[in-house]
Amino acid sequence: MSSTCPLLVVGSVAIDAIKTPFGERDRSLGGSGLHFSVSASFFTEVGVVAVIGDDFTAEDESVFHERKINISNLERIPGGKTFRWAGEYGFDLNTAKTLDTQLNVFADFKPKLSEAAKKTPFLFLGNIQPTLQREVREQVDCKFVAMDTMNLWIEIAREELLKTIAVVDAMIINDAEARELAGESNLIKAARKIIGWGPKMLVVKRGEYGAAFFTKDSYFAIPAYPLESVFDPTGAGDSFAGGFMGYLAQSDKIDDATVRRAIIYGSTMASYNVEEFSCDRLRRLTPQEIRDRFHQFKEFTHFEI
Amino acid sequence: MSSTCPLLVVGSVAIDAIKTPFGERDRSLGGSGLHFSVSASFFTEVGVVAVIGDDFTAEDESVFHERKINISNLERIPGGKTFRWAGEYGFDLNTAKTLDTQLNVFADFKPKLSEAAKKTPFLFLGNIQPTLQREVREQVDCKFVAMDTMNLWIEIAREELLKTIAVVDAMIINDAEARELAGESNLIKAARKIIGWGPKMLVVKRGEYGAAFFTKDSYFAIPAYPLESVFDPTGAGDSFAGGFMGYLAQSDKIDDATVRRAIIYGSTMASYNVEEFSCDRLRRLTPQEIRDRFHQFKEFTHFEI
Repeated sequence: MSSTCPLLVVGSVAIDAIKTPFGERDRSLGGSGLHFSVSASFFTEVGVVAVIGDDFTAEDESVFHERKINISNLERIPGGKTFRWAGEYGFDLNTAKTLDTQLNVFADFKPKLSEAAKKTPFLFLGNIQPTLQREVREQVDCKFVAMDTMNLWIEIAREELLKTIAVVDAMIINDAEARELAGESNLIKAARKIIGWGPKMLVVKRGEYGAAFFTKDSYFAIPAYPLESVFDPTGAGDSFAGGFMGYLAQSDKIDDATVRRAIIYGSTMASYNVEEFSCDRLRRLTPQEIRDRFHQFKEFTHFEI
Repeated sequence: MSSTCPLLVVGSVAIDAIKTPFGERDRSLGGSGLHFSVSASFFTEVGVVAVIGDDFTAEDESVFHERKINISNLERIPGGKTFRWAGEYGFDLNTAKTLDTQLNVFADFKPKLSEAAKKTPFLFLGNIQPTLQREVREQVDCKFVAMDTMNLWIEIAREELLKTIAVVDAMIINDAEARELAGESNLIKAARKIIGWGPKMLVVKRGEYGAAFFTKDSYFAIPAYPLESVFDPTGAGDSFAGGFMGYLAQSDKIDDATVRRAIIYGSTMASYNVEEFSCDRLRRLTPQEIRDRFHQFKEFTHFEI
């Protein structure tokens, strides 16, 4: 397991407790690193850089083996406890209310990458403390690096975050975060500002409204897959990023046409991920189902001039 | 002026007072009938059924003459005062705060259509009291009829509204209204419910998130034109409907491909309308500008399979 994968993600592997209007589960596998890697694994071999404790069982770990995810950079801390998050969603399902966060083994996490991992061409910095993101970014001699973040870091670690933003090729964040980060209520203006800070690309995740993509001089946007019921939105953003980066790494190209398709694959993966708790739906997803939904995106956005 | 136009709209013609974060105007031509007809006039000859008072000056009326809008069913009440609306927008620009409404001549409006108007093939019932909408609908022997409504009628005239909904081919309403009308937080479920009440089509206007289109078994959605500044959102929905219905009437077809293009034309007209106060931008819009933006919609939604 020491070979270089085409794609690497650093992020959390967590044990979540989740409550939605449709049900609850007190032990649900989660975390940005987990949701991202499960999603990306449908497109390419992906490695995950993260930390877990002894409470992360062999059965829990089987999700990585099933999906042939490289865990040679997944550190297990003897006697440690895995990162825990408890959250609740109301009927609008757009924002989670955090009930509890326990950093546990994540509190002292210092990612140490294997030599093989340091040569990964496509890197994703999942939503973790921006200084940690930058430490990983600096260890990898990559071709393309993208990052996520969240309101917490925008609010308490803005300076560090801006330093990380300056050294990535793409940001993949949600709508409200893009506006908050830029201090602009208009998303187009916010995008222009963020791109001015360094990234060549900005992908904005808009939940039920789809996704938008900005570069200095291009724009692309698609609606979301029309779901009649969203069961558990946890991990939607990470499975989007996993599909997006997984497809880019598989294609080994980052031109405009490839990026547009990558956004559709990201949206497809997110749409499946929210249909059930944790990554349950992705664990039994088939490549044919991915192709079907990708083609449906074409059908419901196409018009003849 | 007694010939039958391909398209007829019943709606308000108003004198608005508008305040936005970017400026204010205490006498701004508005109303659903006015915004709709100005927009539709770029596609086909359109007639407007409405009522005005003596305070609607010859200079005000010139907007109809400039755009060759048929006003043979525009009633002027001697000694009457035109419908007035005063509203204010905050920075989000999505919802107007109504400061004042004076029905004036609109309070006793009983639309009496000319014999020519009664043969109009395409009819739009702008946002007015649902009983009035139905009275107009019943007078016209049309091929295709669409309607708008608003939260006020959903809340105070629900039964009347449902009767009107049952006798139209299409509803064109905004996102929040669709959810409120159906009592469903999920838009896909809301759409299914509304279509179950009679209309074959539902077009949902989503402001900065674009538009979605539903029939019993098809779905189409597009993002909005990416505007860096929205100056005055008043009339966006009516200019959308005007572009949509204007293009359908011009094409004299209502198949899926034509409806999809009609949604792009509607979005194009709305995107121009919000760039300035009232319909100032549309009054100097050119057919080439409409074509340009229509093609841009293709560019920013297209992807290769």
